[in-house]
Amino acid sequence: MAAPGDAPERRGPGRPAGRRTGAPDTRRQILEAARTEFARSGYEGTSVRGIARSAGVDPALVHHYFGPKEHVFIAALDLPFDPDALVPELTTDGPDRMGERLARYFFALWEEPDIRPRMLAMLRTVLSGTPAAGLIKEFMTHEMIGRVVRELGVRDAALRANLCTAQLMGVAFTRYVLCLEPIASADPEVLTAEIAPTLQRYLQGA
Amino acid sequence: MAAPGDAPERRGPGRPAGRRTGAPDTRRQILEAARTEFARSGYEGTSVRGIARSAGVDPALVHHYFGPKEHVFIAALDLPFDPDALVPELTTDGPDRMGERLARYFFALWEEPDIRPRMLAMLRTVLSGTPAAGLIKEFMTHEMIGRVVRELGVRDAALRANLCTAQLMGVAFTRYVLCLEPIASADPEVLTAEIAPTLQRYLQGA
Repeated sequence: MAAPGDAPERRGPGRPAGRRTGAPDTRRQILEAARTEFARSGYEGTSVRGIARSAGVDPALVHHYFGPKEHVFIAALDLPFDPDALVPELTTDGPDRMGERLARYFFALWEEPDIRPRMLAMLRTVLSGTPAAGLIKEFMTHEMIGRVVRELGVRDAALRANLCTAQLMGVAFTRYVLCLEPIASADPEVLTAEIAPTLQRYLQGA
Repeated sequence: MAAPGDAPERRGPGRPAGRRTGAPDTRRQILEAARTEFARSGYEGTSVRGIARSAGVDPALVHHYFGPKEHVFIAALDLPFDPDALVPELTTDGPDRMGERLARYFFALWEEPDIRPRMLAMLRTVLSGTPAAGLIKEFMTHEMIGRVVRELGVRDAALRANLCTAQLMGVAFTRYVLCLEPIASADPEVLTAEIAPTLQRYLQGA
């Protein structure tokens, strides 16, 4: 399985290999403009062209540094994962063990010491009720849930994706935020075995 | 099924029928003392005797107004449910449909307009990281999870109870806090049918 930590390095063909190579001021300028534009117009209402205009650069430069809008968004909000990594991870080998793959991907992110603080930050943002919370929700709906849904091709697919989100958020809260015992100290393999069948049923329907 | 809203009225034999009858000042004094004592010593480390001493009243009076310590705690933190109502609700008719009963109890609480704001307040408290959050966690562990666990008599019962908590918290967050669609507008009956088998498997083990 691909390590989730690799995701930021394969964010699109136009992306330079190192995060801090190139012109850091231009990158920073674009990201600041992106945050402003996304906050003002929402995820769907924002375009790479609009971000470029706001940053005073050519749209081709935005694409050169970050790739498509989705990746500008991930970089601007410093999200710890990337649908380009998750969606194929889930769907490549057919539907049979999708629940297990999703559970493994989830724990691989959370159990990684470099990634966990960013997952926690994202979770707190989502719950903050600030404009950033709405943005992350909108992005999840369009780019994560929406894509999984299209791949699944089942009835009530959006609800199925929500049910998986609910199950995973609940595990994240009890284990990583509340540190409720014994779930907080349980072996991720044990928890994977418990929640994989749940995710599988939610994904495929009863 | 017992309406969860009834729970506060059957908090123990010593409890007077109306919440605002009796001596409101004495009640308030006891509740303030209880909040101080629970915050200082935790749930397990606090006694009715200690609360009475702190409030300057006889322990019998605390018991007269609230019943045992657990009910003093529920009143002091204004918790929207009572293990005395939940645990029998879950376990009375044997283990076969326990997952469904738990799901129904959960939605009966959350879908009740008078109770939902208090459920939300409790959820926010639990996530606040304040001393009250630790208290609610400790209470849930000892009085809710602990009691369900004893009734269940299965292996890894505490983990099973945690898994149910995780599932239900996740639904509460996505539906009532984040209002993620389509789960936020889904019929509670549809969601009960989805999550009841999950809760049943978590409660009984695979």
